[in-house]
Amino acid sequence: MGSYDGAMSNETLLEVFPSPSEKPFVVEHVNEEFTSVCPKTGHPDFGRVIVRYQPAATCVELKSLKLYFQSFRDEGIFYEAVTNRIRDDLAAALSPSWLRVETHWRGRGGIHSRITADHGDVPAGATA
Amino acid sequence: MGSYDGAMSNETLLEVFPSPSEKPFVVEHVNEEFTSVCPKTGHPDFGRVIVRYQPAATCVELKSLKLYFQSFRDEGIFYEAVTNRIRDDLAAALSPSWLRVETHWRGRGGIHSRITADHGDVPAGATA
Amino acid sequence: MGSYDGAMSNETLLEVFPSPSEKPFVVEHVNEEFTSVCPKTGHPDFGRVIVRYQPAATCVELKSLKLYFQSFRDEGIFYEAVTNRIRDDLAAALSPSWLRVETHWRGRGGIHSRITADHGDVPAGATA
Amino acid sequence: MGSYDGAMSNETLLEVFPSPSEKPFVVEHVNEEFTSVCPKTGHPDFGRVIVRYQPAATCVELKSLKLYFQSFRDEGIFYEAVTNRIRDDLAAALSPSWLRVETHWRGRGGIHSRITADHGDVPAGATA
Amino acid sequence: MGSYDGAMSNETLLEVFPSPSEKPFVVEHVNEEFTSVCPKTGHPDFGRVIVRYQPAATCVELKSLKLYFQSFRDEGIFYEAVTNRIRDDLAAALSPSWLRVETHWRGRGGIHSRITADHGDVPAGATA
Amino acid sequence: MGSYDGAMSNETLLEVFPSPSEKPFVVEHVNEEFTSVCPKTGHPDFGRVIVRYQPAATCVELKSLKLYFQSFRDEGIFYEAVTNRIRDDLAAALSPSWLRVETHWRGRGGIHSRITADHGDVPAGATA
Amino acid sequence: MGSYDGAMSNETLLEVFPSPSEKPFVVEHVNEEFTSVCPKTGHPDFGRVIVRYQPAATCVELKSLKLYFQSFRDEGIFYEAVTNRIRDDLAAALSPSWLRVETHWRGRGGIHSRITADHGDVPAGATA
Amino acid sequence: MGSYDGAMSNETLLEVFPSPSEKPFVVEHVNEEFTSVCPKTGHPDFGRVIVRYQPAATCVELKSLKLYFQSFRDEGIFYEAVTNRIRDDLAAALSPSWLRVETHWRGRGGIHSRITADHGDVPAGATA
Amino acid sequence: MGSYDGAMSNETLLEVFPSPSEKPFVVEHVNEEFTSVCPKTGHPDFGRVIVRYQPAATCVELKSLKLYFQSFRDEGIFYEAVTNRIRDDLAAALSPSWLRVETHWRGRGGIHSRITADHGDVPAGATA
Amino acid sequence: MGSYDGAMSNETLLEVFPSPSEKPFVVEHVNEEFTSVCPKTGHPDFGRVIVRYQPAATCVELKSLKLYFQSFRDEGIFYEAVTNRIRDDLAAALSPSWLRVETHWRGRGGIHSRITADHGDVPAGATA
Repeated sequence: MGSYDGAMSNETLLEVFPSPSEKPFVVEHVNEEFTSVCPKTGHPDFGRVIVRYQPAATCVELKSLKLYFQSFRDEGIFYEAVTNRIRDDLAAALSPSWLRVETHWRGRGGIHSRITADHGDVPAGATA
Repeated sequence: MGSYDGAMSNETLLEVFPSPSEKPFVVEHVNEEFTSVCPKTGHPDFGRVIVRYQPAATCVELKSLKLYFQSFRDEGIFYEAVTNRIRDDLAAALSPSWLRVETHWRGRGGIHSRITADHGDVPAGATA
Repeated sequence: MGSYDGAMSNETLLEVFPSPSEKPFVVEHVNEEFTSVCPKTGHPDFGRVIVRYQPAATCVELKSLKLYFQSFRDEGIFYEAVTNRIRDDLAAALSPSWLRVETHWRGRGGIHSRITADHGDVPAGATA
Repeated sequence: MGSYDGAMSNETLLEVFPSPSEKPFVVEHVNEEFTSVCPKTGHPDFGRVIVRYQPAATCVELKSLKLYFQSFRDEGIFYEAVTNRIRDDLAAALSPSWLRVETHWRGRGGIHSRITADHGDVPAGATA
Repeated sequence: MGSYDGAMSNETLLEVFPSPSEKPFVVEHVNEEFTSVCPKTGHPDFGRVIVRYQPAATCVELKSLKLYFQSFRDEGIFYEAVTNRIRDDLAAALSPSWLRVETHWRGRGGIHSRITADHGDVPAGATA
Repeated sequence: MGSYDGAMSNETLLEVFPSPSEKPFVVEHVNEEFTSVCPKTGHPDFGRVIVRYQPAATCVELKSLKLYFQSFRDEGIFYEAVTNRIRDDLAAALSPSWLRVETHWRGRGGIHSRITADHGDVPAGATA
Repeated sequence: MGSYDGAMSNETLLEVFPSPSEKPFVVEHVNEEFTSVCPKTGHPDFGRVIVRYQPAATCVELKSLKLYFQSFRDEGIFYEAVTNRIRDDLAAALSPSWLRVETHWRGRGGIHSRITADHGDVPAGATA
Repeated sequence: MGSYDGAMSNETLLEVFPSPSEKPFVVEHVNEEFTSVCPKTGHPDFGRVIVRYQPAATCVELKSLKLYFQSFRDEGIFYEAVTNRIRDDLAAALSPSWLRVETHWRGRGGIHSRITADHGDVPAGATA
Repeated sequence: MGSYDGAMSNETLLEVFPSPSEKPFVVEHVNEEFTSVCPKTGHPDFGRVIVRYQPAATCVELKSLKLYFQSFRDEGIFYEAVTNRIRDDLAAALSPSWLRVETHWRGRGGIHSRITADHGDVPAGATA
Repeated sequence: MGSYDGAMSNETLLEVFPSPSEKPFVVEHVNEEFTSVCPKTGHPDFGRVIVRYQPAATCVELKSLKLYFQSFRDEGIFYEAVTNRIRDDLAAALSPSWLRVETHWRGRGGIHSRITADHGDVPAGATA
């Protein structure tokens, strides 16, 4: 497919702002419109990306997160790798107390998939 | 947008009444009709706010809670800040054994969000 | 409203029968058709009541439970109070190992509510 | 309520663009985030607005439609009137072959409502 | 049951206001919280009532409709009769171009029911 | 299976009462708890039965309808036959303007089924 | 794939029995467990098959229908062809007043499909 | 009701086969088509029965389990008793490491019920 | 956005094959993974595309349809235009008796949209 | 049934690739299109298979997993055995930190089933 030109996602797009509270709280952002490219077949993959984290001192700015996700549009990358990449990029940008990245994929050949990668220990009550 | 004039939410609207029981119990109020204003774009945000708490000695009066939520209608405030603000205002008004505020946002740019802030430790069985 | 005449609910309607087993088990009854009256406005409230318990020696008879719930139809009583009242009435009638009463209310002014009151400690596996 | 100052909605916000086809087709836009104010109580109303039309020569521009809907935020207006107002404003701006406006309201006092107003005759197959 | 004292519903509670448009449109009000009493057993019945109509010159005022529905709370009346009664009361109060009353009942003895009564002919497109 | 002893359903259980209105209306009763026996295998069949009719002069009494449905519990009868039998029995008892019987079956061997039988012509608007 | 050996489906498996009524009625059988093989790739296809018909004089026997569907398990055949084949086989076996075959396919490459083939004209009320 | 003749369920119908693995695993069987008879009213009860267990050395054979469930069809027995009976019968037949029986009942008089009875301790991860 | 380089969709990708039947039937293909680019903002749009048609002599080959849809990935085009483009491209390739293209869009600024374009008259029963 | 020829599933089809991260993460693949054959009746069984694991050093390649699942198409094997077989085959191929196989079966004789088999201890947070 012509649209797979090896373009790379861009973690420098991520911007942060200071957390509005010193008490612990949990933030979740769900992107229903994620797309990247299968490096084997060149066909596009479609998925949902869920980011859940407990800020230490900074939060991720929402529009910058959206542009960061869009930067994967032309990148050829496997499900397992993109999940770990997002986890690492956000952990580096936010230094959060805890971070989880969950990706859900619409499926290929009758199989749909979900990958989950954590940074740090899940805080008590975080999944409630 | 003309309707964003810097008006502030008003925590003095909150009223309480004595808890009807000395044994522990848990109260949950869900407001499906929350709206505030994005301080960056001036566009309205829409969300659901869930308040869950274990009273110590007082409960929040339901109509006063509704008016308190309506007082955010013209306030420019980010998702993370409004969640922490509501948590702090209710904790001050109720001095509860435990309190959780959860906000769900309809989303901007294809991303929808959920913020959760606790006051005190989750009592055993509270989320069942 | 004419139908709010201060009539009181009647816990003497509750009947019990001996538990059919000496081993622990858990019973749940869900009443989708609960109605009482708001003591402030005189308007009817509508809700669902969930009773979950582990019998010690007796179980509540189902038809008597239904008539007990119907006895709240004309009583003016707040959400928090009715939940604690049902918990106390059933605990007195059944002396159960554990009892939980959960009430879900259709809502007023855009806010719907849920109240949960326990008697005794949740047995292992009871909410599974 | 302070936020109800009699501000009026603004139909001049609506912008149009030429239809991309001379063959008939049907467009539907659904706004899940509509809010206006009840002129009787001053409390905010929340609803969903569905616009469905068959263009004659012009289509409504999506961002202008969003701003037009936002201009109702501080207007005191009944369900029936706002539905007819939107129908009339869009019919004037678009001169469509057919137009339907449907509003769904979250409800007050246990009653939720839906209002439907048409301009012109429903084209064959339009609701399929 | 003590609460069934033969009290009758009260159609004089219904209030109307002039229709905001001379063009035809359709209004639907859904009451999720209807209750009356079974005249045979004295047990309460619970249901949902849907009113859908095309105004001629007047619309029904929403709060008065709610109070009218509440006036059935202590009336002993069968499913089929209450549906026809509401149809007749609203037709008399509104003289609408068309009116449909639909009642859905939670059920007795494993059977749930739905009754539908019309006044006038369904206008083209009214059920869309 | 021992419980299949050739017992026959009993249409004499059906009782009627005079229609409460001379204007046309439509009644629907849904029985979620229907069971009969497969005449081939002796295994029980489980289904839902929907009766929808426009009364001429009489309505079916709800408790008698329930007992009539229960009388099929030990009868060996195929899906197609039981549907036509119920249609014929109710048409004879009610002489309705229109009657439809719909049966939904949970299925055997991975196939689930639905049978529909009418008496008279569907009245305008009856399925709305 | 080894399991694709060109085996053909077998319409001689279909058995019929005399219709239990001379009045028109409609039968629907839904098979949730249909599988055949894609003739291009050799990979299995999975789908749901819905058969809906108005008997003239005979009905299809349910177990024979199941075996007939199973006979497609190793056949290489496209969506469009299998739908028309089933329609033709059943029309030949049943000579029905009307017959519709609808197949729903779980999808390949992100696209899921539905094919519908009729024999005869849809009777009034058949899809209600 | 004639069909309630005091017939008793029959645990000798249960057959077992050796577990295919020596490592622990969990089996769940859900019967959506359970019916017994209320001993008080003689009316049939309908429910769903869920059996979940960790085999020690044997598994229950599926067809024998179905016949065992069918043997309750004419037995008069309360919700609480039937749940404990099934738990005891299966525990005796299987000697499992852990067993849970859960029954869900469609309800009588507006109340639906769920009974849960365990044999042995829930293994780690068993409800995941 | 870098990925919007004005690339155009490519209708020459569409391949057809002869219809397997001379009798009329209807085909529906649903693509849940459609994406193009907003020509105004450069942000990606995400949607679902439904194609429904009655073949005259040819059917569209499924893999070619998928590649055709993928060719919109980098094209800047409005909702209304892309829907009419797909309708025109498929009508040219298939010369069908009837064709409908329906696009559903996930939404921008709180508004989600649906566009429907037909070629030819809807055949009787086609939407059932 | 002719298609049951004793063919065996083939674990040599499974291929692995190196994990893209040394930090722990969890992968889930869901196959909605699993079919094998009942060894007792020869009828096909249909189910969903869920594989969830925490890689140690390798991940399973998605297309090879699909072919492995397809190799069960003609094998006669019970629910309990196939679940344990898949668990053992994947554990051998992947040597994962943790692995769970869950199979859901559409059901026979009104009973649907679910089997769960683990390899290793569930890691903290793995089911969140």
